[in-house]
Formats: sequence, structure tokens, C-alpha cells
Amino acid sequence: MSSSPWSTSWSTPPLAGGPGGADALRPLVGTVLAALRDGATARGGPLPPGGPEDVAARLRAALRDGTTEAGDPGHEVRHDPRHDVLPDTGTGAEEALRTLVTALARGAADPAHPLCAAHLHTPPLALAAAADLAASALNPSMDSWDQAPAASALEQLVTRALAAETHPAGHRPDALVTTGGTESNQLALLLAREHHGPTLQTVCGANAHHSVHRAAWLLGLPEPVTVPAPDGTIDLTALAAVLTDLRGPLLVTATAGTTDTGSIDPLPEIADLCDDHGATLHVDAAYGGPLLFSETRRHLLAGLDRARTVTLDLHKLGWQPVAAGLLAVPDTALLDALRHTAPYLNADDDTRAGLPDLLGRSPRTSRRPDILKIAVTLRALGRTGLGHLVDRVCATAGRLADLVEKDPRLDLHQRPALSTVLFRPTGATDETVAATRRDLLTHGHAVLGRAHADGRLWLKATLLNPHTTPDDLEELLAHTALVEGSTTR
Amino acid sequence: MSSSPWSTSWSTPPLAGGPGGADALRPLVGTVLAALRDGATARGGPLPPGGPEDVAARLRAALRDGTTEAGDPGHEVRHDPRHDVLPDTGTGAEEALRTLVTALARGAADPAHPLCAAHLHTPPLALAAAADLAASALNPSMDSWDQAPAASALEQLVTRALAAETHPAGHRPDALVTTGGTESNQLALLLAREHHGPTLQTVCGANAHHSVHRAAWLLGLPEPVTVPAPDGTIDLTALAAVLTDLRGPLLVTATAGTTDTGSIDPLPEIADLCDDHGATLHVDAAYGGPLLFSETRRHLLAGLDRARTVTLDLHKLGWQPVAAGLLAVPDTALLDALRHTAPYLNADDDTRAGLPDLLGRSPRTSRRPDILKIAVTLRALGRTGLGHLVDRVCATAGRLADLVEKDPRLDLHQRPALSTVLFRPTGATDETVAATRRDLLTHGHAVLGRAHADGRLWLKATLLNPHTTPDDLEELLAHTALVEGSTTR
Repeated sequence: MSSSPWSTSWSTPPLAGGPGGADALRPLVGTVLAALRDGATARGGPLPPGGPEDVAARLRAALRDGTTEAGDPGHEVRHDPRHDVLPDTGTGAEEALRTLVTALARGAADPAHPLCAAHLHTPPLALAAAADLAASALNPSMDSWDQAPAASALEQLVTRALAAETHPAGHRPDALVTTGGTESNQLALLLAREHHGPTLQTVCGANAHHSVHRAAWLLGLPEPVTVPAPDGTIDLTALAAVLTDLRGPLLVTATAGTTDTGSIDPLPEIADLCDDHGATLHVDAAYGGPLLFSETRRHLLAGLDRARTVTLDLHKLGWQPVAAGLLAVPDTALLDALRHTAPYLNADDDTRAGLPDLLGRSPRTSRRPDILKIAVTLRALGRTGLGHLVDRVCATAGRLADLVEKDPRLDLHQRPALSTVLFRPTGATDETVAATRRDLLTHGHAVLGRAHADGRLWLKATLLNPHTTPDDLEELLAHTALVEGSTTR
Repeated sequence: MSSSPWSTSWSTPPLAGGPGGADALRPLVGTVLAALRDGATARGGPLPPGGPEDVAARLRAALRDGTTEAGDPGHEVRHDPRHDVLPDTGTGAEEALRTLVTALARGAADPAHPLCAAHLHTPPLALAAAADLAASALNPSMDSWDQAPAASALEQLVTRALAAETHPAGHRPDALVTTGGTESNQLALLLAREHHGPTLQTVCGANAHHSVHRAAWLLGLPEPVTVPAPDGTIDLTALAAVLTDLRGPLLVTATAGTTDTGSIDPLPEIADLCDDHGATLHVDAAYGGPLLFSETRRHLLAGLDRARTVTLDLHKLGWQPVAAGLLAVPDTALLDALRHTAPYLNADDDTRAGLPDLLGRSPRTSRRPDILKIAVTLRALGRTGLGHLVDRVCATAGRLADLVEKDPRLDLHQRPALSTVLFRPTGATDETVAATRRDLLTHGHAVLGRAHADGRLWLKATLLNPHTTPDDLEELLAHTALVEGSTTR
């Protein structure tokens, strides 16, 4: 019937771990790789055409019909999709992997496609995705040493090494691993709240990531005071005025690489203002942080080391699968507020006897070793290799800006500070710009983002794919012009 | 030199996505599988012997020496481990994967080993780990439709199907995907806070998971009131008294499968008390939830459907790699408090035009599609296959309890309610029990947990491995007796 290593669904399927895990994984991984290839080939473009309803209908049909050669006649008469999700009798590993992975690849917005360039949604490196398989198979959980002996030791080495990049003069640089920039910002506000108390007032630019506001809400802190950022970076005069007016403990959050334009706030000047006013500085470098790896661009982050907390996120400009967030501090003692005891994980006598206490390393308990793929990437590429990738995507953004500038049908917002380019069809209304973006999505032509700047709506291209060629960029702009034409006809 | 698909670290390494991604992944995945096998074989037992310092030293040495056949002489003179973590020039994908994955597998506490049975730290199924590779390669991010067209449609189908299990009579059952039980409990408290306001008082048993307390702290809520649970489940008389005494909005959190003993609180009686006192009910079924899949055991969760929010966590009794948490509700409208707008992800005009708004599905922004491995597992095994696995590990726990009862050198705490067994060497002091557990870890013999019950410290075995045999259980107990003997000699 089937080449699956276990033929009946009620038997005990093999585990991913142990000495036999690799052999059990091999045929299943083969099925996954074939399904990834088939799905991507069937899709063809950067995303599936047809829009949300078509994609959902196709997925339901794939689940209903399954892999026909599996030959389970029971499938055909099913109508409630819940029975396709959770059938009474399983379809077996091979059928389930083939059906679901093919459907997911077929219906993906694939960041590895050069015309999928909307968001800080990176195309992961193959080596990072391969490393992530080992994380899934070994399944160390980072909440106690006896669930993650080597993984916790690796996390300690890598987080210290990365924090030494953001805080080279720090006393004992350290970093926490997070689910992304959002959790990093949340932890930055939490650490500041625990240091200063619940009256802590957060001050951020109008260019700050939405997660700063959401973190304040989550943590029961006052709504952040927002400082204007008319040119995409915090207005220093306005910031000085706000810091002069406010009373009580203050946390200023600046951004190194904004989501909308990739702009970098003037960090040294903001750090000076924080010093003058006794405010704590947090820098959200979720996007821009990896500029540190580029010899020619790391100067753009001057002043970063003056922040008490720094958000990094290597699932953006670090080519990692989600999640790969970090929160770096100049001294590990700044993380003490997260200390927490649960006797089954870190009893006092175990800690005194030398078992590392990991629970204070995250607000999560069970935690996947996201550090493994990061470690593999840092070691495989080295500083030079990572810097090269950063430089490449920044250069790609520069080339796109060149092309826009040369095209009389398009307006460029500004030269890219990082790898984000805003542009718009000349003379278009905001409604046309928004409809153009949606048309590109619905036709499956391209995935572009959107951003408000200078009182207008722009198309946003976030260039994170180091393989994107000048021809790809021409094609991207051609699609934009075509669809724009069809919309305004 | 090397068979790596890219030979110099500064060139542009291949991506995991696109039609060529599978071909790029294949040799790298081959390296990972070989490293997993080699590392597990070298380790031999359930965890590496030597304790934390030895494990860390061996990891540093592996990073320093690397894969010798890679032949980079620069390695030998390095001493600062930061240079082994982030070298100036990379070592290439193959070397990095081989070195780091071998070291991680060599130094793992592997839940696939039958004597690794301390925690709710599950051995993942090979099919779930294989599915997770597709999540890493495609890297859909669940914060906007245009980053995850099919993945978001799949998440909708699967979360609704799972919520229909917890709330079969619910109006529109729905569930959020979380990083685990801890985040699920946090969201339960957050939703209740938003419904009732910041004076919400949480009431939980002394048997509740530590994350309930941590969530209250994180969210700025009053410290939970703790009700005694002398026999491992909430004392109903004490709960009634507490609910009578307290004023203001109340959230009662009960547990279906406690971390220490696997006990299940009397849910129908607690739900009645909540009704009588106008309190909201949350049930943390992170451990016990999958009893729903077992025909012979689902009755143990009677009353679960009366909870306003239910924590599930399929990286426990669901054999998923971390993370696979859920928070289920009987009506999707109960999730409205999480609604949030970030114009680059869910602008009003895009939502009106039919683009699904995903940002309210999580407090995270970027989010890995953990639903894929869950979907593959549900479909491959079906309800029958999952129920079979649940029944198997519960039966294994029963067998271990039998063996303990028959062994005059050991005391059994109580018959297992789920798959957790507490036992201790007869007559031992708590200090000896704690030292026995640490000795087993240091010798690399077994990974057992610990729990306080009835005023004493017990060894805890959490049986989650469906492949564990009666012989394995005999060996586990033999190790316990041996080490106990050596400690007290």
C-alpha cells in the first residue's frame, strides 16, 4: 500500500529523537521536501492568485480530497471540514504530510520569491531552516537544565556573544531570547516597570512599532506619550519639550530601522536627551540591529550601546525562520526582575547544588531552542558573511530607488536608509495606491506593503532577499505600473 | 574541500523557500540527520553525564575544535568562545550544522529515551518534527494575510475544530495559538481583565501552575488568592468560603492535569460554585486536555465545556515539538479584547476590502505557523490514533505504579490520575530524595522530576513516551534504588 514506516494510524508512530529518530525522519523529510517543491512549482508566483476566499476554498478542497493515491474512499463523502482536520481514523503520516505541506506551499506568500517584498518577512536561509529541524527533533525545552543541558549552555554562549555586539563596553553583556521584536519591546517595558514602578511613562516616536503601545496596555502602564516624527525619525526638539514637561520615571524608546521607512532615529542625540532628563533609553533595533555586522554600515548604529535595553530580531535582517528575537542588555543584572521560582523547575536546593536556573530567562516556561538556528547561521557565515548579506539587500534597495527615480510614472519617497523603499504612481490618489496593492495580491503578481508618509499613502517594498536581481526589480515596477493602469482605466 | 552547496562563506547562501529550496535543503538536512544520529549514539543514555559544568565545557570544546575534517587551521588558536560563536570568516553551512547539531544531540536530555521522564517534556513524533521543517522553510508569518495566505486559512480550520472539542455546545468555538500553557493562562487572565477591569481577583488552587501567578504579576493584577489543595485537587469547601468572602469580579482557575501529580480538579463542582458566586471559570488543561481524544478517558474532563477559557498544550500530551499551545473559547467574540490595529498590517480599508485581520489572534506580531505540525498530527493519527497514544502513556503510568507498589524499597504516593507517578525510597529524608534525583542526572542515568506532596518530597516520573516498555520501567526503578543506596551509604 504505502511506503510509510508505519501503516496503520492507531499503531504507535515513531519518535523524532533517540538513535533511531534520524531513520524515522528521513522518509518523512523526503515527503516534506517533495511537497515543498511541488507546492512551490504549482504556485509559480510570489503568492497564490484569487484572494482570501479562493485560497481558503482551495485549502478546504485539498483537505477534503487529500492525496488521491492514498485511496481512502471515506474522504469523498465528508463535508464538514472538521472531519478533514480531525478524522476518526487517521490518514497516516505520509498522506498527511504530502497533503498539508503541498497545500501550504501552494498557498504561501513565499518571501524567497523576489516579488514578495511587503514586510519584514524574511526569506530564511536553507541552513537556518535545516538547523531548525534539529530543534524540533531534539525538542529541548529551555525552562530547566534537565530538559536542555547542551542547548542551555549554547544559549548562554550565543546570547553573550550577541550582546557583546550591541554593548561592547558593557560590564556583563547578556541577552534574552524572545519570540520577536514585539516580545522584546514588551520585556523592555516590563524591566523598566519593575525598576521604576507602575507609574513609568513611556515616550516614543510616532514612528515607533505598534508593539510599544500594545506592551504598555498589556503591562497596565500608562499609554505612551507620542512624539512627532515628521520626516520618519523622532523630532528632537519635540522630544526635548516632552521630556521637560513630564514628571516621574520615564522610558524613551527609539527605533533603529522603522517598519514604515527603515529610518534610524538619531541615537546619540536621543541618548544625550535621556541623560539630561534622567530618562531610561530603550532602542528597538529589531530591523536595523544586524547593521552591526557590516563594516561599512555599522556606524549608522552609533549610540546604540548607550541604551539600557536593545531589541534585536534575526528573523528580519538575519534570515532566520520566525522566531529569532532577542533583548540585549549591557549587564546581566538588569534582567534580575524576571527571576521567578517554580519548585519543580528550579528548587533552591537544586540551584545551590549547581543546577542552572533558567526560569528567569523568559516569561515563557516551555521554550523552543531558537538559539540553535541562530548559532548555526553565525558560525556558518561569520561576521563577514552576514555583513555581506546586509550590504547586498541595502544595495538592492538603493537600486530599486534608482529605478523609481528614473521612471516618470513613479515618485520616490526618499533614498532608503536601510532596505525599505517607498514609492507611488505619480498623481495617484491614496485610494488608488491601496487598491493597486490589493490588486497585485489578488492577481498573485506581487506582495507589496503600504505606509503613510508625508501625508500620503505609499507602496512599500522591503528588500530582504539577497538573491533579488536588477531584473526582478524591473519586473516589480512593471507590475506596479500595469496594475495601476488597469485600476485607473 | 567540502561538498557544501556553497563553498565560501561570503557568497550568498541558498534560501529555504522557492522552487529550488527543497534542493538546497536536501544535503543540509542530510547533514542534520547524520549529526542527530551521531550525537544520540555518542550520548547513549537519556542525558550526558557529568553535570552542568562538564556539559558546558564539552560544548565549548566542540565549538573550538569544530569538525576537524573541515580543516580550518584558524580554529586551533582561538580561545575566546565568542570567536567560535561568531567568527570573522564563517566555517560554511556543512561544518556549522555538523558541529552544532552533533554537540546539541550529544548533550541533550532526550525525551525519546524512556529514562528521560521528569517533566511535561514530550518526545515529539517524527511526523510532527518533519512537518515543522516545512514551517521553517516556508516561514509564513501569522500576523497578516499577505504573509500567510494558506497558513492563516489552515489555522482557522484547525483552531475551530479543536475548540469544538473543548466546547462542543459553544456558539462559535474558536482558539488562539500560543507559545504554550503559560501564554494561554496569561491570555485567559488578560481577557478576563479586559472584561472585568483591573480589579479582577484571580482565585486558584495551591496546585495551579506557577504561570497563573506570573501572569497576574505581568498584567498588573492583584496577586491570586490561593485555595488549599491538600490531596492535589482544589478543596471545594475552602473554595466556597473564599468565593463567599471576596468582593468584586472573580476569575477562578482550575487545573485538569496538575504539573506535580497529574490530578484533575473537580470541574463540575467548581463550575457550579462559579455559577453560584458569579465568578468566571478558566481551566488550565495544558496537560489533561488530550484526554478528550480517548474514548475511555474523556469522561475525566466532564465540566470542561463550562469554562469560559481553556488552556490546551499539545507539546505535552500531544507529542508536538515546542511550541503548540492553544487557548480555546466557546465563542470567538470572547477574543475581541485582543483586537488591535497597525496600519501596515490591517488598515481599515484593507479589512473592509476582505483581507483577513490576523493581528487580534495573538499578542505577538510575527508568529510561526505552529498549527502546521498540529494539523499534520491530527490528520495522520486521527482521533483514534491520538486516543490510543493517550491511553498508552496512561497505562504505562499505571504499570509503573504497580511496580512501585510491589517494591518494598519504594513508596507510592497515589495511583496516577493521568500519566504522572510520584514515588520515593522508603524511609528516605527529603534531602536524600533531592540528592538522588541530582545523582541520577550527574551520572547520566535518568531524568526524573521532583514534587512536594503530603508534606514530603517525592521523585516524579512523567510518562509521555508511548514506546516505553515494562523493562524500561524496571530499569528506571533499579537505577533509583541503586543511586539511593550509594547516596545513603
